[in-house]
Amino acid sequence: MQNLSCAPSAVAINTATLGHILDGHGAGWSPEQVIDACAARGFAGIAFWTRELNGRAVEIGERTRSAGLRVTGLCRPPYLVGPNAPADQAESLKGLLETIDVAAELKAESLTVVVGGVIPESRSIVGSLNAVADIVARAADHAASGNVRLALEPLHPVYAGDRSCLVTVRDAVDMCNRIGHSHVGLAVDVYHVWWDLTLAEQLQRLPSDKIFGFHICDWLAETRDILLDRGMMGDGIADIRGLRKIVENAGYSGPSEVEVFSAGNWWLRDPDEVLDTIVERVRTVF
Amino acid sequence: MQNLSCAPSAVAINTATLGHILDGHGAGWSPEQVIDACAARGFAGIAFWTRELNGRAVEIGERTRSAGLRVTGLCRPPYLVGPNAPADQAESLKGLLETIDVAAELKAESLTVVVGGVIPESRSIVGSLNAVADIVARAADHAASGNVRLALEPLHPVYAGDRSCLVTVRDAVDMCNRIGHSHVGLAVDVYHVWWDLTLAEQLQRLPSDKIFGFHICDWLAETRDILLDRGMMGDGIADIRGLRKIVENAGYSGPSEVEVFSAGNWWLRDPDEVLDTIVERVRTVF
Repeated sequence: MQNLSCAPSAVAINTATLGHILDGHGAGWSPEQVIDACAARGFAGIAFWTRELNGRAVEIGERTRSAGLRVTGLCRPPYLVGPNAPADQAESLKGLLETIDVAAELKAESLTVVVGGVIPESRSIVGSLNAVADIVARAADHAASGNVRLALEPLHPVYAGDRSCLVTVRDAVDMCNRIGHSHVGLAVDVYHVWWDLTLAEQLQRLPSDKIFGFHICDWLAETRDILLDRGMMGDGIADIRGLRKIVENAGYSGPSEVEVFSAGNWWLRDPDEVLDTIVERVRTVF
Repeated sequence: MQNLSCAPSAVAINTATLGHILDGHGAGWSPEQVIDACAARGFAGIAFWTRELNGRAVEIGERTRSAGLRVTGLCRPPYLVGPNAPADQAESLKGLLETIDVAAELKAESLTVVVGGVIPESRSIVGSLNAVADIVARAADHAASGNVRLALEPLHPVYAGDRSCLVTVRDAVDMCNRIGHSHVGLAVDVYHVWWDLTLAEQLQRLPSDKIFGFHICDWLAETRDILLDRGMMGDGIADIRGLRKIVENAGYSGPSEVEVFSAGNWWLRDPDEVLDTIVERVRTVF
């Protein structure tokens, strides 16, 4: 088990790690280049972003699987609430349903959902979470019919204003249990939760089949940019092994997804170098 | 009670709000100017920073009290652990004891303690917290003999790497209860805890006389700088009234201390304008 986990087959690659996340960053590889490079190194799978699919979700999904890789995830629907979401929650639901359709075409194993910030003028995290739960609950049957699992991702509390009013695993477990649907679970990301000493305790409150993703990177001790300065595993101070153990003890047995947003470092490098570094770090650090 | 709380007498001013926190910021008022300006507006008290005292702690303390103001706090000892603390924990203890002596001279009602980040190479928040608890426990009797209360302040999780391995009220309550000393308690700061839906539940685990400070500002929805872009009450999205109610229900009856680090906005303004704005916001928002 320990040996298997230290091989590239224990991890999937989120394309954001190769700089695909923002225009102007990264080498601009095509999905096909990413697929070939990941297959050559024996990774378990790939998680894509919607902007990379351009109407080719079915084709890219089949291409990935025929290369021997899983499509572990898709990122992500538009924000559901908050200052950067549609003012009308019916519009938010529509955006979520449309992205579920794309995930179904891709046959992605899960769709990562980042919920959006606190509703403007509300001053209420609870009220914002209630609105999120309502939208997600209304989309859940549609997700199930497309065989898409919705992975609610609690973000670091620093993003509560503009990106995610869902900022703790505790609140995410509450929401998941409240919705109580087979296709609504969690994604746990090292970057967002590494500081939370209640992680194991909170995940115990969740059915063991409800962790739909585990994302890894590292937290740099002196983080220069709160969005785009994530560390590669081994370069920071998070107890990645300990966190992985907690998530596995809570029932997760899928691959760990490497997701490193790094405008000032890793996105400036050749994607082949980045992938080779990940292979090395998985063997030595993970 | 509600009326009293909405008067300037319900709040104290942390001098950092006037840009005293960093060289080159703010109007550079002397402690005497701050004292006179706060007394004229009927605030409850002032919290100072050690760098402002320059060996005049006794004099400044007496000057504050003779103007009818309380010295609600002093900020702060050197970091106890982490990348920006002395490598030797005996040195950290020495720094803490020396700052306690300054607080005693000032007759400050509490000394705010920011504990420092995760110990380098440790990858262990728990181990770092254990080291902090050990140092604080060893200083507690000295603090009591100087009539200084040590207010452990949990910082926002975004600071865990370099400023505070103590990042949740839960962990701070645990540490306080574990040390179990009359002069070791908490400071609760809106900026650091506003996102935490367990605040009331956690404070219930604390003896009702152990909240030594309540710091207020606001969290701006789109925060541009994670250290120096705090909002004035009313300009952000934190439920300040709700948080105050929680802290009061947990037993705190002292003044709320306004602490706004704002290099790009409030520190650029005339301190008189800043103080007038606080008077207005206390009446309308707080």
